[in-house]
Amino acid sequence: MEIAQKTRQAAQNLAVLSSEEKNQALESIAQALEAATPAIVAANEEDCRVAQAEGISSALYARLKLGESKLQSAIAGVRDVIQLPDPVGTLQIHRELDQGLILRRVTCPLGVLGIIFEARPEALIQITSLAIKSGNGVILKGGKEALRSCQTLVEVIHRALENTSVSPDAVQLLTTREEIRTLLGWDEYVDLIIPRGSNAFVRYVQENTRIPVLGHADGICHLYVDQVVDFEQAVSLAVDGKTQYPAACNAIETLLVHQAIASQFLPLVAQALQEKGVKLLGDAKTREILPVEAATEEDWRTEYSDLILSVKVVESLEEAIGHINIYGSKHTDAIATTNPETAQLFLNLVDAAGVYHNCSTRFADGFRYGFGAEVGISTQQMPPRGPVGLEGLVTYKYQLTGQGHIAATYSGKDAKPFTHRDIAE
Amino acid sequence: MEIAQKTRQAAQNLAVLSSEEKNQALESIAQALEAATPAIVAANEEDCRVAQAEGISSALYARLKLGESKLQSAIAGVRDVIQLPDPVGTLQIHRELDQGLILRRVTCPLGVLGIIFEARPEALIQITSLAIKSGNGVILKGGKEALRSCQTLVEVIHRALENTSVSPDAVQLLTTREEIRTLLGWDEYVDLIIPRGSNAFVRYVQENTRIPVLGHADGICHLYVDQVVDFEQAVSLAVDGKTQYPAACNAIETLLVHQAIASQFLPLVAQALQEKGVKLLGDAKTREILPVEAATEEDWRTEYSDLILSVKVVESLEEAIGHINIYGSKHTDAIATTNPETAQLFLNLVDAAGVYHNCSTRFADGFRYGFGAEVGISTQQMPPRGPVGLEGLVTYKYQLTGQGHIAATYSGKDAKPFTHRDIAE
Repeated sequence: MEIAQKTRQAAQNLAVLSSEEKNQALESIAQALEAATPAIVAANEEDCRVAQAEGISSALYARLKLGESKLQSAIAGVRDVIQLPDPVGTLQIHRELDQGLILRRVTCPLGVLGIIFEARPEALIQITSLAIKSGNGVILKGGKEALRSCQTLVEVIHRALENTSVSPDAVQLLTTREEIRTLLGWDEYVDLIIPRGSNAFVRYVQENTRIPVLGHADGICHLYVDQVVDFEQAVSLAVDGKTQYPAACNAIETLLVHQAIASQFLPLVAQALQEKGVKLLGDAKTREILPVEAATEEDWRTEYSDLILSVKVVESLEEAIGHINIYGSKHTDAIATTNPETAQLFLNLVDAAGVYHNCSTRFADGFRYGFGAEVGISTQQMPPRGPVGLEGLVTYKYQLTGQGHIAATYSGKDAKPFTHRDIAE
Repeated sequence: MEIAQKTRQAAQNLAVLSSEEKNQALESIAQALEAATPAIVAANEEDCRVAQAEGISSALYARLKLGESKLQSAIAGVRDVIQLPDPVGTLQIHRELDQGLILRRVTCPLGVLGIIFEARPEALIQITSLAIKSGNGVILKGGKEALRSCQTLVEVIHRALENTSVSPDAVQLLTTREEIRTLLGWDEYVDLIIPRGSNAFVRYVQENTRIPVLGHADGICHLYVDQVVDFEQAVSLAVDGKTQYPAACNAIETLLVHQAIASQFLPLVAQALQEKGVKLLGDAKTREILPVEAATEEDWRTEYSDLILSVKVVESLEEAIGHINIYGSKHTDAIATTNPETAQLFLNLVDAAGVYHNCSTRFADGFRYGFGAEVGISTQQMPPRGPVGLEGLVTYKYQLTGQGHIAATYSGKDAKPFTHRDIAE
């Protein structure tokens, strides 16, 4: 509780700092990380040694490992965040309600973020930068494998902040697994939880806190290949969507193909995918054309995160849209077609954060959208939805200034009317 | 479940209708309500008779009663909603990511709204209009006292929609209290719950559903009277804030007064408030000046919704802000001062949806802000925050259109750079 209160206190001061003060603190962090590189690398080597002794998988080891070059690019990332526009203080509404009664809607920090991440220790650097830039305090919980790396990083960050306007208390590290539960219960002190981890973990977090959660439960993305289509382009979209980075949440898991072209298209796409090592599973109609294993009902709901793709032949655009709206996870779904009317129907009727026409689902990403940095991808229905940049870490307040204006003037029989005049900048 | 599925289906069609089609449906509803006025009034009279026989309070009776003139203004409200701009289809981002790869962020309906309201049957008319205008299906649950009124209203609305582009299935009525629990469990079909009712009820809803909830848990608003202040203006703000409509969530519950002016100001404000029938409760320092009952710790956390006001003398601006940030409900808090620096500190440091300077907290309202219609006031930290207009009933999707663009082109050694060029309208 004390940690939460201290973070909240520090966050209140951080919230009102100027962009310059926040950027100075970030530059101080970047320099301190550079200077402390040997200590950070040494702490990480110890983490890696212990993890290896405990039989960590090679994939996890690769994520845990923080060598000098990975650290350098994380430090470059801090300076990238300095360059981003300050999300705080944006005037969204500026309106005269009546003479001398002026309404302003201005963006402001959320307060305190609770961020739970996995093995990659450099995520701590990125998250801390985004939190400070957006004026928020942050309580961090990293993977247990990265404990020494995270402790060293936070020590360096604390020292770096000591001579800046940002209090070191604004950045806190939790070190035990039990503290996750504690963090989820701090609904009076923490304003947003961002869990970065497996789908099961994100769901666990959503079900165990009253604090709003920014995260995506699943990434079940589709590519639908229409009957009027450029075959070569559609094959290329399927290959890129599945194989360019199969573990990403924006990779496709299911390919839907219109029956009118299935017998021609499926052999083409199957060959291209199989050359990339993709295993195909198909529904009955697909299996009349391709010699692949059967896809079950469960496959339509599965995020493989691997070189596996389920394939279904559909009778119509409507069936494709219906399938996506039932089995998709509202992340990103694409259509390949040269018919603009069909494409527009698809974009209108598919209910997902991203609806794409003739491009790969792999573009669903904050950097690619030009947001500079990404705090995560939300598959929730309410905004922020889709890739979320710094704007997901701020809220707004309404500031109303008057000259003694009271509501009684504007009600009853002789009510004065409001002017409701937007004020141009 | 069948109701939820039917509503979802109808909502999918409603989501893509033009503004004209939605406005035609609303005009058809307005005309049908006019034509059915005798039947609606008769059903409501039956509700009122039963409620009276069961010993309903006079306040509740007044809310339940739907006479011809109340109905007429509700019908006028439908036509007001027709005049509001369509919140769907707004282009929020329009950006070239690379040549021929165009990103658009466009507002779209949430899907299906679940709205639980109290005795006032005309609320059903307003809610239905806002839902249709924003392209959402709606599942309604009214107070049990208003059952016959609500059933008649929905029958009329269903008939009115039959010859329009909006399916009658888009508007559904639940009639039993048990169905509230059912509604809260429909997280696959319902996208937003708006509970309109007591604080306790809103909290019950928040704790019993995984669906996002738009609502406010409390309205504990403050007025802080600084040491540099126009006494007459400050008295007027206190009287308006407390007495203009004491049951409103934006009425003040606590008055904070700087100690430097307490002995002069408190007698003035006490006299003005007591003339309006306000009962005062005070902390120790207040009671050295005013002969009032003691306010307890519990009082600082209490929304009286009545002509009662707790009063506390504070040593400084900082103490006032600290008190508000601990005990307030992040709804609306005001400062009375003629010192602009003090005012700015207050506006920056108080964490609330509304922060006001020299005006009454009673202005916290969607109509007064110029939003045309209000679906509620949110005291959540994340947007939408404060008074929420039609924009609270929509979300957005990212539409990306390409010409066969794949992500592989933009990664690796020879990665092509993005252009990230915003396209002017």
